[in-house]
Amino acid sequence: MNVTVIGLGYAGLPLTVKLCLLGHNVTGVDKDKKKIDKFQNNVLPFAQDEPYLMELFKKAILSKRISFSLKFDSVSTSDLVFINVDTPLKGNKPDNSSLFSATQNCSKFLKKGTIVVIESTVAPKTCDNLLIPILEKDSNLKINKDFFLAHVPERIRPNHIFKQLTKLNRVIGVSSIKIKPILTKIYSGITTGDLDFTSLAAAEVAKTVENTYRDVNIAFANEVAMACEELGVDIWQIRRLINKIPVYNLHEPGAGVGGHCIPKDPWLLASSVIKQSLKITRTARAINDSMPKHVLELAEKSLAIIGRKIKNTNLVILGYSYIGNSDDSRNSPTKDLVKRLKMKKAIFKIHDPYVSPYDQTNLERVITGADCLILMVAHDYYKKLKLKDIASKMNIKIIVDGRNFFDKKQAQKNGFIYKGVGNV
Amino acid sequence: MNVTVIGLGYAGLPLTVKLCLLGHNVTGVDKDKKKIDKFQNNVLPFAQDEPYLMELFKKAILSKRISFSLKFDSVSTSDLVFINVDTPLKGNKPDNSSLFSATQNCSKFLKKGTIVVIESTVAPKTCDNLLIPILEKDSNLKINKDFFLAHVPERIRPNHIFKQLTKLNRVIGVSSIKIKPILTKIYSGITTGDLDFTSLAAAEVAKTVENTYRDVNIAFANEVAMACEELGVDIWQIRRLINKIPVYNLHEPGAGVGGHCIPKDPWLLASSVIKQSLKITRTARAINDSMPKHVLELAEKSLAIIGRKIKNTNLVILGYSYIGNSDDSRNSPTKDLVKRLKMKKAIFKIHDPYVSPYDQTNLERVITGADCLILMVAHDYYKKLKLKDIASKMNIKIIVDGRNFFDKKQAQKNGFIYKGVGNV
Repeated sequence: MNVTVIGLGYAGLPLTVKLCLLGHNVTGVDKDKKKIDKFQNNVLPFAQDEPYLMELFKKAILSKRISFSLKFDSVSTSDLVFINVDTPLKGNKPDNSSLFSATQNCSKFLKKGTIVVIESTVAPKTCDNLLIPILEKDSNLKINKDFFLAHVPERIRPNHIFKQLTKLNRVIGVSSIKIKPILTKIYSGITTGDLDFTSLAAAEVAKTVENTYRDVNIAFANEVAMACEELGVDIWQIRRLINKIPVYNLHEPGAGVGGHCIPKDPWLLASSVIKQSLKITRTARAINDSMPKHVLELAEKSLAIIGRKIKNTNLVILGYSYIGNSDDSRNSPTKDLVKRLKMKKAIFKIHDPYVSPYDQTNLERVITGADCLILMVAHDYYKKLKLKDIASKMNIKIIVDGRNFFDKKQAQKNGFIYKGVGNV
Repeated sequence: MNVTVIGLGYAGLPLTVKLCLLGHNVTGVDKDKKKIDKFQNNVLPFAQDEPYLMELFKKAILSKRISFSLKFDSVSTSDLVFINVDTPLKGNKPDNSSLFSATQNCSKFLKKGTIVVIESTVAPKTCDNLLIPILEKDSNLKINKDFFLAHVPERIRPNHIFKQLTKLNRVIGVSSIKIKPILTKIYSGITTGDLDFTSLAAAEVAKTVENTYRDVNIAFANEVAMACEELGVDIWQIRRLINKIPVYNLHEPGAGVGGHCIPKDPWLLASSVIKQSLKITRTARAINDSMPKHVLELAEKSLAIIGRKIKNTNLVILGYSYIGNSDDSRNSPTKDLVKRLKMKKAIFKIHDPYVSPYDQTNLERVITGADCLILMVAHDYYKKLKLKDIASKMNIKIIVDGRNFFDKKQAQKNGFIYKGVGNV
């Protein structure tokens, strides 16, 4: 089949590669000229460390069934068009500009019989109320008569993108049950997971609720963690005790929630309802957004023990991405921490083994003479840091642990003032 | 060993029986004279339908190692004293009157070497800050020198109390690690589950957080359910789709949360901290408490479809207990619904196969001529209700389903207006 994929990010690119390797002729479209140039020169502009991605990308290139373009004309000969553009926020409301632009451009070239598949996460009712009208208007075609719409929200998270793409169950919302056979064929090639067919709206709700569930449960863990700090108990011990019973899944508290999905999808869900205020959802967002501020407060409390203030203190921040072992820094909690540190006129250095330019920071050198280490991301890379070595290099020995990365008792044995989220 | 158990309710009575059957000499103490009279006459005043309870109770009586008393003098010869009294709320704060009274009475008779075990759920820091001082004061004994304190929060829920008592893991908070061997011996006789030793405060936090986790997750499910009603999708389908992936556990939405634990323990937790407001925890409580009101609104919306109001409408409420297949009606959501219906001057009948006097209601007779059926509790007993039969008996055919008990499509096929929580 002829296929176009619009939007070549963390979800769209692996899909493009996979569809090509399945034998389809695929055109990858993106509005970012630099990205397209790189793809055309067989270079991956991101996610270089993702297992399999580079290897399979090269294989796809060699097959000659893959091409990249800034333009949408391939849509006019495509049986399937996937839309995988970013759907970010503007304030707390969905910013559908990329999505609408992609849909509009797609509709201009839309031919009869084509199935448009929205893989971007969207607010419930977006497909029915916003995208179908756009697609019908510019194409002069009629939904379920001349063309079809599906919503198959992507479920990809950094680290092992390909494993997720090819193993996870997919929820497939369709405008008409008529397209079930063809989408079954396509997606059962992509994934060995279950394919669950439903309505467009139910697929939208399932995806946004899924990530809201995670956000709410992380926020609850953070709320409990902060209570534990006040009560003088260790949240991680509490968590182990509770989660011994399989029905409980108290999530991991931490320095904040980032990425393209979890901080955003709850707002997509909330924006879709008027009568319901989704108070837990909104409260959870506020709590998770406040965690970098809480980390800063833990640093200030640690410094207060020795009569110091954050101003003129040499801080080292470990981790800039939003998740361990990844270069993805979208909505990273460290960005918020950095903003706050600047407001406090603090002196700080950032290190991250995956994120440029912080991968250039000499870790040993910045630790030497530092007053306070703030661990924001649990990169495996940091496992090589030995408490004894750090202690010998630092000026004042303070660790603020946003990810329960260091052992508190060991840190204290090595002379550190240690404060972790939920374990002070 | 000689043992006293103070407080003979859903948790204390099975414990008393179990300890007796393990070979200990047990005195069960309760302030309720009627209850003690019944026990002394070999009668179970509650939970008669609990599997094994009656049988094992009789076995214990025959052993002659069990006795019941209104007085506390058995404490003076007891190696172990268990306190299992109710710890309810007064407003949103813990009402420790029964707990303090039991502890005080216990301390008056406390002998050297005794271990006091608090099985009642208490607000974090209650043991350290409130109970140890009470026990030390009246006894003139010193904690960890003359006597010891443990907090082993009960984990019992109605239905299969004995299975839970004898299988579940127990968290054991101790005032001193010295009592670990004896408590290991005692509790490994009671349960085959793990025994996890920790501090008194950590045991208090683990228990209250465990139930708060459930309350928050039910409230989130309710929040999503109400959004689904607005969006016209079925929460139960969404839930199935999300929970296919094992890391997700979207809970069941419904007509409200009752019982002695879940509506209360979040407030115990919240009362223990000052700096943290526990916003998610408090919001969750408000949402779950509002669900009977929401059920009433669903009834009103259903009636509005045919131009009727709730006043002068014949309602039948199915279920008065707080949970299916149980007689336990503590904090039952139906109680709140009833209060609201009275305010609306609605005409209603209540049926419950387990709760007196509603077990005397003739189900068939009250359904005949009724205008609206509100299912509040998913008793298996109601499975015998066939939609076709109900339809033929009712005057106006409306079902408001608080527990996803009836099949919506089948109900509609049988001519019902059907509105379920999260599926309207």
